[in-house]
This record gives sequence, C-alpha cells and structure tokens, in this order.
Amino acid sequence: MRGNGSFLRNPRIPFIGVGTASLLLISVDPYLRSTITGRDGDLYLPRPPLNKAITGFGIGRVVRSKNKNFNEGDIVINPFSPVAEYSIVPADFLRKIDPTTDIALPNYLSCLGVPGFTAWVAIEVLGNPKPGSNVFISAAAGGVGMFAGQLAKLKGCRVVGSTGSNDKVQLIKDEFGYDEGFNYHEESDFDVALAKYFPDGIDLYLDNVGGKLLDDVLNHVNKGAHIVISGMISQYNTIPAEREGVKNLMNMVGKDVKMQGFLCGSYLNQFGEFAQQMEKYIKEEKIKPKHKINQGIESFFESFVSLFSSSNLGKVIVQVAT
Amino acid sequence: MRGNGSFLRNPRIPFIGVGTASLLLISVDPYLRSTITGRDGDLYLPRPPLNKAITGFGIGRVVRSKNKNFNEGDIVINPFSPVAEYSIVPADFLRKIDPTTDIALPNYLSCLGVPGFTAWVAIEVLGNPKPGSNVFISAAAGGVGMFAGQLAKLKGCRVVGSTGSNDKVQLIKDEFGYDEGFNYHEESDFDVALAKYFPDGIDLYLDNVGGKLLDDVLNHVNKGAHIVISGMISQYNTIPAEREGVKNLMNMVGKDVKMQGFLCGSYLNQFGEFAQQMEKYIKEEKIKPKHKINQGIESFFESFVSLFSSSNLGKVIVQVAT
Repeated sequence: MRGNGSFLRNPRIPFIGVGTASLLLISVDPYLRSTITGRDGDLYLPRPPLNKAITGFGIGRVVRSKNKNFNEGDIVINPFSPVAEYSIVPADFLRKIDPTTDIALPNYLSCLGVPGFTAWVAIEVLGNPKPGSNVFISAAAGGVGMFAGQLAKLKGCRVVGSTGSNDKVQLIKDEFGYDEGFNYHEESDFDVALAKYFPDGIDLYLDNVGGKLLDDVLNHVNKGAHIVISGMISQYNTIPAEREGVKNLMNMVGKDVKMQGFLCGSYLNQFGEFAQQMEKYIKEEKIKPKHKINQGIESFFESFVSLFSSSNLGKVIVQVAT
Repeated sequence: MRGNGSFLRNPRIPFIGVGTASLLLISVDPYLRSTITGRDGDLYLPRPPLNKAITGFGIGRVVRSKNKNFNEGDIVINPFSPVAEYSIVPADFLRKIDPTTDIALPNYLSCLGVPGFTAWVAIEVLGNPKPGSNVFISAAAGGVGMFAGQLAKLKGCRVVGSTGSNDKVQLIKDEFGYDEGFNYHEESDFDVALAKYFPDGIDLYLDNVGGKLLDDVLNHVNKGAHIVISGMISQYNTIPAEREGVKNLMNMVGKDVKMQGFLCGSYLNQFGEFAQQMEKYIKEEKIKPKHKINQGIESFFESFVSLFSSSNLGKVIVQVAT
C-alpha cells in the first residue's frame, strides 16, 4: 500500500461518513471524457469541480471508519472514488464486497461493474434480441462490447463486432465467441463491410461509437430493427458543431426502427438482478472478462488516453495498491 | 361525373376483382414523394411502375362489379386508387363506407384516413404522453400534425407546433387548440425558438420534417424524452448524401431518449380501434378537420407540389367527381 495521504489533508473534500479508504483498483472509462469537456451537454454527467480529483468506479480498503457499518480492512466498491491513493469518502454509495467471494476483484470493475451493467442493460433490458437475430456491436472488444457480445451469444444470436485492431478481432472471436469481426481501420468502407458481414441485415445494433458507422448501419437495418446507444466514443473528442452528422435517419421511418440512448445509472433499480445473473455466468465461465491492468496511479492518464487510440486490449483498470 | 374511362382500356391493369370504380376524391400525401425518387430506400415504399398511374388513398363509387360483396353505387375507400377518373380495381383492399353515415366523405381521407391514423399511432400508440407533458409537433398544420396536436391536447398536454406561414400558426392555435406555434421561416434560429417555447424542455416530439429542426430539438429534450418520426418532409427532395446530418444524437445517451420511426401500415391491426375512437371524436367535435379541396384531376400535380411549399392550408385533397 502506497501513498502519502495528501487527500486527507485537502480541506475541500468534505468529511461526511465512513472515513479513510486506500484505493486498490480504479476503472478507466470513456464516459469520463465527456465530463471534462468544460461544457454542459452530451452525456449530461456532472463536471468534476476544479482543483479536485476526478472520480471513477474504484475498489478500496477501509483504513479508518467512523461509520458503524464499515470496519478497517473492509473491501468496498465506490462509484465515486477520487483518483487518489487515499481519500475520505462518504458511506452513502459504498458497497461492501463479500470477503469470502471467489470472484477476482478486477471483475467488480468490469463484468460486475459499469461496463458489464451497461452491456447487460443494452442486451437484456433494452435490446432483448430473439435467438437467431443478427446483432452488431461496435467497439466490440471494449469494456461494454466484450460483455454485450457474450450476452448476445448466450441468447442464441449471431453476433458480429467491429473493433480497432486485428488483435482485437482475434480476441473477440477466440475469447468472447463472436461469430465474425472486422477491423474498422482496414475495412473502412463500412457500407461494404456491413453488406459482407450482414447479408441478412441487422436486427440489433449496440452503438458505442456513433458517427459514420451509425450512419452506415442505418442502411443495413431490417424492418423493426433496434439501435441501442450506450455511448459514442468516436465523437467524444469533438465539439457538437464538428461532429459527423447522421444523414440516413429517414430509414428509421421506412423500416420502423427504434433507437434508444441510455445511461446505465437510469436502471440502477435492476442492478441486483444484473449482479445475480452475471455472478452466475462468471462462476459457470459463460462470461469471460479480459482486463488490461496498468500499474500505479501515475499510469491513469496514459490508461485513459489508450481508450481512444485502439491500443488497449481488454477493460482498462489501474492498480493503485494491493 | 367526368372522365373518358381511358384506364379501362389500359391492358396493363390486371382485372382481378370488383370491377370499375369512378374516383370521387383522392388524398395528396407527402409520402408519394419518396416513392417516385427513382431509387430504393428511405421510406421503403414500393415504387410505382413506369407507364402506370401512381396510386393514392382514394374514395370511389362502384360503376360495375363482378364481386358479390360490392354493388353499383357503393362508395368505397381504396388505399391504392390509381390517380385516374375511372379504374378497374381488385376487391382485396376495398372498404365500403356506410351509406347512412353522417360523416362527410373528405374526413375518410384526413382524420379517418392515412394522416389521422398516422397521427393516432404517433400520439396514442407510440408517444402516449402523460397529461401536462410538453409536446412539440413539426409540420403542425399538415395532414398529420393537425390531428396529432388535437389528440395531444385531448390527453391534457401542452402542445406547441411549428409550421410554414403565419396563417398556419393562427390556424393551429385558433382551430386546432395548440397552445403556441411559430413560423419556422420567421423564427429560423430553432435553438432560440425552442428555448422560448419550451422553457421546461420537450417530452415528446412528433417529427414530420427531419433535418436541422430535429438536430436542434435534441438540444432541448428532457430526460426520458421520446421522439416519434412519422416522416421527414424537409429531406424528401434531397438524396441521402446531401441531407442535413444530425449531429446532436449523443444527447440521446445522456438524456435516455428514445427515437422511433414508423409507417402507419405496420399498425393496421389497430385500425379498427383507431376508427372507432376517431369517429367518436369527430361526432363530438373534439377533433376538427381542415381540408383544402382542389377541383379536377388535372389539379393533382399542383396539389402535390403545394405540400412542399407551405402554400397549402389544411389536408390537401383533390375532388375528381361528385
């Protein structure tokens, strides 16, 4: 366990609840990009205040506690963990991890965390594809895509993913069970690629990237298709005025298409059901996670940037302490 | 009754069923534009074959019949009426109008026809806004918009419409009960207009126009808003590559927005329920139609063009005979 406890001495962090926690693992997620744009809008998540650490989904160990529900040594999940080695955190959002669990801790930030829950809401709650449906998933090797694809396979669908490197294409086919995959840098005429991989059209598209790919998908949707949008990573580094406009929306009329954006936070009342189903899948090895764990809090920034360059392989997590 | 019966002698029209009908009234609808583009796509409606009359929703009188369910003099609705004074038509899609009805015939092409049914599906089936919801309707004085606004008012919503002339703004407020309306030619900064007319944001948008207005609406939607798309008249005269791209789709994620395109033909199993409810509203004068009836089959083309120039006032119908 490292760190000098500097956040303990920061008077701007209010002391509300549980006491001090040492950060063990923190999730590195694309949505953070949209919170640090310096403007409102897009994902409508609160902007981190200036001069405070940004927060993410983290796992920590309680060092001291003034809350009777938590004791020194407890391992806790905090959706609003400051990216800091130590921090004083309120008890409100903490969830204890059962110390007898045989599930490895990083899973609580991937399949059992935000990406897994997002994938579950997209596939189980919103998309809910029938067996045999043609499902397309972009950013298919990313935190959300990897679990969404596996969940869709468990529902008996034919699943194709797009991703940013040949290694990732191999990964989604070999480890996550995707039927097909393509590298969007190499097969960059999406219209041709989609015609090739979806000769029978697309019934469900889980959009994680937005922009041109979404536009082209709209030319390959089947009657009654469903497009579920969990994010648009290709657009996070642009201001709205410079974004790629989507021109094929009229197909939504002729094909009776439903398109639905969502934040997984709006479905928290179903988190318990999700966790139960996902833990079962993990124990049965029906869902396999893949983690890219970078070491040390100083790797956070580099880890974050890797989300936007196709250079990561698996869900990116920073290990701050053990 | 006029006409030289030339279609009777056209050997390319197969003789399947009922016999000859004289066309009395024919509906002039924007969707026809997308069927005559010379390419597949968009609304995915069948293209009319070359050298045959295009068809529309029409009302005719049976002149001769070889089908035992229809007799000379019957007044029938045919969703696939050739734009021709006389035609030989199959019985499959014909529906008889009760001769004892006190509902004026043009209503069967407006509130009880395609536009009314489209409005009903949009508001009653898909949008289903709660009382007090903020509802925005574009092309608000058009065939669909005029009934959609009235249906939303009957559900207790606050309804604002955009339309293409000051006369139409007056019409939707005075005759259709819209709370507010604006002329998009005059208030052409839609962002400013929407902020003015929707200080509390938009809960339901019935999109009949697409393009820039849809893009700007996405900046004014509330959490959980619903966008129902019945058509995109602003885009019908352009090819997809030249269309206005919609750039603000990412707001759908942050605001949990659902967007849904539809063709009313996909909801025909609910037509009976619709007709029953709408006839009741008409008899109670809770729904008021407004018709622009042009005379003579030769006015069909001009009537059609008027749909795209904001020059029509009310549902456009051509009266071919009485």
